Amino acid sequence: MRINFKVKRTIKLGIYCLFFVQTGWSQNSDQEQIKKIYDVALTQGKSYDWLNYLSNQIGGRLSGSIQAQQAVNYTKQELDSLGLDKVWLQPVMVPKWVRGIPEFAYFETSPGVTTNVPITALGGSVATPPNGVKSEVVEVKGLEDLAALGEAQIKGKIVFYNRPMDPTLINTFASYSGCVDQRYAGAMEAVKYGAIGIIVRSMNLRLDDYPHTGSMSYGDLPENKKIPAAAISTNAAELLSATLRLNPNIKFYFKQNCKQFADVESYNVIGEIKGSTHPEEIIVVGGHLDSWDLGDGSHDDGAGCVQSMEVLQIFKKIGYRPKRTIRVVLFMNEENGLRGGTEYANVAKENKENHIFGLESDSGGFTPRGFTFDGPESSFEKIIGWKDLFEPYLIHLFEMGGSGADIGPLKNESITLAGLRPDSQRYFDYHHAENDTFEQVNKRELELGAASMTSLVYLVDKYGLTP
Amino acid sequence: MRINFKVKRTIKLGIYCLFFVQTGWSQNSDQEQIKKIYDVALTQGKSYDWLNYLSNQIGGRLSGSIQAQQAVNYTKQELDSLGLDKVWLQPVMVPKWVRGIPEFAYFETSPGVTTNVPITALGGSVATPPNGVKSEVVEVKGLEDLAALGEAQIKGKIVFYNRPMDPTLINTFASYSGCVDQRYAGAMEAVKYGAIGIIVRSMNLRLDDYPHTGSMSYGDLPENKKIPAAAISTNAAELLSATLRLNPNIKFYFKQNCKQFADVESYNVIGEIKGSTHPEEIIVVGGHLDSWDLGDGSHDDGAGCVQSMEVLQIFKKIGYRPKRTIRVVLFMNEENGLRGGTEYANVAKENKENHIFGLESDSGGFTPRGFTFDGPESSFEKIIGWKDLFEPYLIHLFEMGGSGADIGPLKNESITLAGLRPDSQRYFDYHHAENDTFEQVNKRELELGAASMTSLVYLVDKYGLTP
Repeated sequence: MRINFKVKRTIKLGIYCLFFVQTGWSQNSDQEQIKKIYDVALTQGKSYDWLNYLSNQIGGRLSGSIQAQQAVNYTKQELDSLGLDKVWLQPVMVPKWVRGIPEFAYFETSPGVTTNVPITALGGSVATPPNGVKSEVVEVKGLEDLAALGEAQIKGKIVFYNRPMDPTLINTFASYSGCVDQRYAGAMEAVKYGAIGIIVRSMNLRLDDYPHTGSMSYGDLPENKKIPAAAISTNAAELLSATLRLNPNIKFYFKQNCKQFADVESYNVIGEIKGSTHPEEIIVVGGHLDSWDLGDGSHDDGAGCVQSMEVLQIFKKIGYRPKRTIRVVLFMNEENGLRGGTEYANVAKENKENHIFGLESDSGGFTPRGFTFDGPESSFEKIIGWKDLFEPYLIHLFEMGGSGADIGPLKNESITLAGLRPDSQRYFDYHHAENDTFEQVNKRELELGAASMTSLVYLVDKYGLTP
Repeated sequence: MRINFKVKRTIKLGIYCLFFVQTGWSQNSDQEQIKKIYDVALTQGKSYDWLNYLSNQIGGRLSGSIQAQQAVNYTKQELDSLGLDKVWLQPVMVPKWVRGIPEFAYFETSPGVTTNVPITALGGSVATPPNGVKSEVVEVKGLEDLAALGEAQIKGKIVFYNRPMDPTLINTFASYSGCVDQRYAGAMEAVKYGAIGIIVRSMNLRLDDYPHTGSMSYGDLPENKKIPAAAISTNAAELLSATLRLNPNIKFYFKQNCKQFADVESYNVIGEIKGSTHPEEIIVVGGHLDSWDLGDGSHDDGAGCVQSMEVLQIFKKIGYRPKRTIRVVLFMNEENGLRGGTEYANVAKENKENHIFGLESDSGGFTPRGFTFDGPESSFEKIIGWKDLFEPYLIHLFEMGGSGADIGPLKNESITLAGLRPDSQRYFDYHHAENDTFEQVNKRELELGAASMTSLVYLVDKYGLTP
């Protein structure tokens, strides 16, 4: 690309002014304020440096780990430095699951002829026996295949869940939703038919060598019935499947050493700017501070944390004094318990706090495309009225839909919850895997997300959400 | 991110059907056909494998190089395998500029105390004398600073152009446009004041260590007046600038060995599917096959080439027989001469061909956001009528603007020219630099671009562009 196309932004803005003089926003001052927000994010933003520290100085922040505590301390200290009205830690008990020494796996095509494959224990899984598990493998495309196979074909074997994410869905989160039952419920379902372990194809659209962990559940299985569960990389899943077609009798071996400990105390990290005219109306913006232990959790969800902190930083920088109370919450334990989000909502209820809006960023630090909303139709209609203010920033997606796991417990009849929706194409290349690292986050993309969040919070604060 | 938002795509499509029964497209068959196009691109696309070959088996494809010829041969062979109606090579003479052995540069803060910095010769630059150039440096923020400094402060020195790309522009191509005069005209302007060489800050929004090359011009300067020109990485530009503030008398040394040879013969690679009912109306889709010699030209513009080839591949795969002639053109020599694009337009004119539409992809293989158009207002209005067909694929940008350099020479009063507009945030991290490599291209993003192009070409073919 050598010669460039011209941007006709100025003309377009002029046209907006003509068309939208009747809408629910003040076109000049809001346009200017939002331009200021984006300019500050892109030139004086702190999000990228904060993320660098969280990712490279601290690293993966699994609930209950030293790193999670370091992240609590670091982000509290950074919030303290912003000159907010109040910064505090909200105690919450969190599960402590530890991976232990690295997992190891291979399949054996004939005695002694083995091929090593990359696996990772699913979060919450039990360990294998000390010498590992070894048995024949039965490949299925999902939970629904188990009944047909029955105990006759499953008992004593390892179940290999290998339904890939659907590549034809444009929204990769929809592909993820269509697959993740294998990871979450695979073990508790397979155990009903006598399986001794499960292996799940990683939730990744790309063929590569990274196994992706993630939460799983045993339901109400007693401890002695639990079977070990691990994810295998997509490349290795393809290889294993191809090998099984040639020889269904190959054996799979894996060994993992993970362990669940007693709950430990941790914290949500909270900071707020008190509202000038409606301090009792609270707007929450947040992400989750914990991450999996693989990689450094840059996209999931270091990005969401630093973007949320940036919202308050930008308000301070541009000298915007909000009418309502703007609170940043860095939630602890989204990945394997949601304890932070649950506790935050409980405390809010106890204190009879009035949350009017919650915005979560937990879909990666990629170029923002828009927001999804969950709340009263009337609020959504009001928000849609602001859509044109975002067009210069290529924010185009305003849809009803979900918000974020951590703010979910705040749900009631009146609150509006929202989620930032970045471009989703690359998210699952990194999600819950060793390669979710700082290098995969682009500074501008991260900053544009923060600016988009700040702009939306600014409008909600200024105009409220009542019709 | 653990829990997901729901896509309400089905409902939305239903709503479109209600609203758009009167628009210029047949909602059911077009929706289905476009869905098929995206599905094929994402599941049976060849673009990623083609790009892998171009990038990793061939590499950088500077005009006149062996690699450029290999790329001609390879893409012709691949087009031959698609069962098109005609595939041919169109001869064109191209410049041959060769970088020679690697450039070398340092600045010297006191005799013998030197700091090496990464530079790269600008495309078309002359070499330094065999022992290099060494002199004091005068830093400027652009061409307009030269007159104020005058010969008194410039003569015998190296001019260092250090105006950075504007980070506040959302469209990074606009930032590029606002800076690239320093690279293109920096040498010919500085020479007027007696400069003996120029160094240009790389056209990159990110601070990193990659120098970015690109075309430059000496205007009509005679050979003996030409001065060497190189780009310096953004990190090194910052360092040099900071050092100059401390000590304006530091010396800069650089040495480069590039050389311009006589023109050589090369080719545009062309393939077409003959139109079934209006074969005389030609739709061109293309990218440029040449690249700079740094990196492997994956984003610029291997991506555009394989996406353009994919358009025809997809039509074949879904069994769509176009009404009009669909031609893919892989243009040679966009980067340092535009000879391929110029020759293609000349031959088209000689043959009295009727081109109704041209679409170029030359902005990287990132997630597609939309298209810009250059042509009659009436055509644009017709195209805008199809916009809702693209919404399920998150293609939202339809604006008047530029198209692509290679198809530019086809411009006349009736033709509509268009450019694919991918997300632009990361483009200049890689543009014309050593890190423009295959690893930086995401398969899905590349394929979505190809599908978007195919869908637009399908609609233009089916409905034409006359009002």
